[in-house]
Amino acid sequence: MEAAPAGTVAGQGITQDELRLAARNHALPLEALRHPITPPGLHYLLIHYDIPDVDPATFRLEIGGAVERPVSLSLDDLRGRERIAEPITFECAGNGRALLEPRPLSQPWLTEAVGTAEWAGAALQPLLDEAGPSASAVEVVFTALDRGVEGDVPQWYERSLPIADAAGGLLAYEMNGGPLPPQHGFPLRLVVPGWYGMTNVKWLTRITVVEEPFTGFQNAVGYRMYSPDGVPGEPVTRMAPRSLMAPPGVPEFFTRERRLEPGPVTLTGRAWSGHGPIELVEVSTDDGASFAPAQLDEPLGPHAWRGWRFAWDAPAGEHVLSSRATDAAGNTQPLDVPWNLKGYSNNAVERIPVRVANEADLS
Amino acid sequence: MEAAPAGTVAGQGITQDELRLAARNHALPLEALRHPITPPGLHYLLIHYDIPDVDPATFRLEIGGAVERPVSLSLDDLRGRERIAEPITFECAGNGRALLEPRPLSQPWLTEAVGTAEWAGAALQPLLDEAGPSASAVEVVFTALDRGVEGDVPQWYERSLPIADAAGGLLAYEMNGGPLPPQHGFPLRLVVPGWYGMTNVKWLTRITVVEEPFTGFQNAVGYRMYSPDGVPGEPVTRMAPRSLMAPPGVPEFFTRERRLEPGPVTLTGRAWSGHGPIELVEVSTDDGASFAPAQLDEPLGPHAWRGWRFAWDAPAGEHVLSSRATDAAGNTQPLDVPWNLKGYSNNAVERIPVRVANEADLS
Repeated sequence: MEAAPAGTVAGQGITQDELRLAARNHALPLEALRHPITPPGLHYLLIHYDIPDVDPATFRLEIGGAVERPVSLSLDDLRGRERIAEPITFECAGNGRALLEPRPLSQPWLTEAVGTAEWAGAALQPLLDEAGPSASAVEVVFTALDRGVEGDVPQWYERSLPIADAAGGLLAYEMNGGPLPPQHGFPLRLVVPGWYGMTNVKWLTRITVVEEPFTGFQNAVGYRMYSPDGVPGEPVTRMAPRSLMAPPGVPEFFTRERRLEPGPVTLTGRAWSGHGPIELVEVSTDDGASFAPAQLDEPLGPHAWRGWRFAWDAPAGEHVLSSRATDAAGNTQPLDVPWNLKGYSNNAVERIPVRVANEADLS
Repeated sequence: MEAAPAGTVAGQGITQDELRLAARNHALPLEALRHPITPPGLHYLLIHYDIPDVDPATFRLEIGGAVERPVSLSLDDLRGRERIAEPITFECAGNGRALLEPRPLSQPWLTEAVGTAEWAGAALQPLLDEAGPSASAVEVVFTALDRGVEGDVPQWYERSLPIADAAGGLLAYEMNGGPLPPQHGFPLRLVVPGWYGMTNVKWLTRITVVEEPFTGFQNAVGYRMYSPDGVPGEPVTRMAPRSLMAPPGVPEFFTRERRLEPGPVTLTGRAWSGHGPIELVEVSTDDGASFAPAQLDEPLGPHAWRGWRFAWDAPAGEHVLSSRATDAAGNTQPLDVPWNLKGYSNNAVERIPVRVANEADLS
């Protein structure tokens, strides 16, 4: 057997380092897919370092770098701008990582690192326009207040975006109608619809317009599609399409295997993509051997997941249920994905084992 | 090497079943110890089955069994009673399980399955008094709306309490001043100060007074201190004393190892016990070889954790930091605990590795 590439493990259980991350961060419990807007505390959460303790009274957002007029804003200044609110789906770029083999060593996500909130705040573009980026500006760097060491580099979490992609950004100070919770970026975060979650910089405090591409850790080293020999390739950007099902029946406590009685059941779930609206969701009840179209709910918004439902007459026996999404750009979820060294963007179709049996009291 | 007892694994990484539980449930990020009242979404969470979808408009709490006058209450009825509010610390009985060797197979907690909320609702005792328990009543059974299969037994989650212990119970409809979040028991849960979390039955819908000890799964099979050969022993009841530190410095992303610069730093944390007030917290900076007393903050309340602080002049080098609690009943956290088959009540002293070095930009 060949050795697993550096930074990955083959055929082994989750390490204590991974478990420590899994205990801090958390996914969406799949039954919470019933909510179009994820209630607070159920939205997935990935925190690179520690949640910083930010005093909103002295907080400032600074906009500078290659601009004509640097801008400094308090929270009240931001709240004084036009308030934009929209339901937006976030997904972690590492969602699905722990299902890869060999397994990249990082936060060990299964499939549920997702959530949809109503984010509200001030549009980024008018503020950038006020600052007046130089004619040779190429990117915008977003710097946060959480600090740690990653890849041996002490750093504030920061990520850049091409200046054209920054145009769609929102400077959010509200989540689901209230102030941001500490763990979701209080008092201010960037929200960029359609991009993976690492783009939505929490605890945002500085925006810097730059005239050369940013070479910070989270753009140059992190969040790249790597080949197995450790060469960083294309950056991770928009969310690949994915659908998840709210598993039917009831769970077995430890295995989470689903148990249900034979007969009609309506399967439901939600699907999303960062490349365009969801146009098709299909459901398989035979472990991906065949798929049939689900019925789509009305859209919740252009940047939010789309609900779906599928009538199934569950026969007794063991089954594997799956759903798969196709977006308007023609991207469809694959049954298997090409492996990558850091475990990003694994949108392989889900597999939910269910046991259908005439057992007492399962409903 | 001897085989590990059934239901445990020796020397192996976390299994995918355990990881699936760890992705749903979550611990308190340790930096959130800075908050005396844990903000929503950061409080630890352990859900046995699925979060049920409860309609508050039709919800009823039924009190029956061996009583003279069965009682049926709506949420408004409960809100019409005197409102009792108190900060109360919860801890999962399985906290520390994943640090045992061999490791019991269940939710793989490290040390942080804890949180403190302000719970508010109606006192249980006056409602029990109205129902009028029979003279031969011995226990009260609390039945919830979440359903699953555990130990091959389909069940609604339910737990009993000796009738004398039920007297301290609160029927909570508010957490931190708002309605209960779905994952914390909306619309109603039991809260029993001082007991491990499994006692605080979420999605509570029925209270049954019984004249024989309850033999349901969660009392007779689950939540017992087992010997290695699988014989259920004493029930798990009150929280053993424990102290946790908010780790100083900044984390390395993957290992969570702490990095800080040499010099004075104030270590802080919180300690609690279900057996009485915290009377002493001691801190070790040499991996438990020696301890010195910390300064205690003012108590937050009789059933809430107690803050503490400790001045440390951090010398360069690698250190392991620990804190240890002693309660008014004379219980002190041990450095090592006796092993038990289900991994309950592991309150061994924490161990936090830190690296103190003159590195650039760690503060």
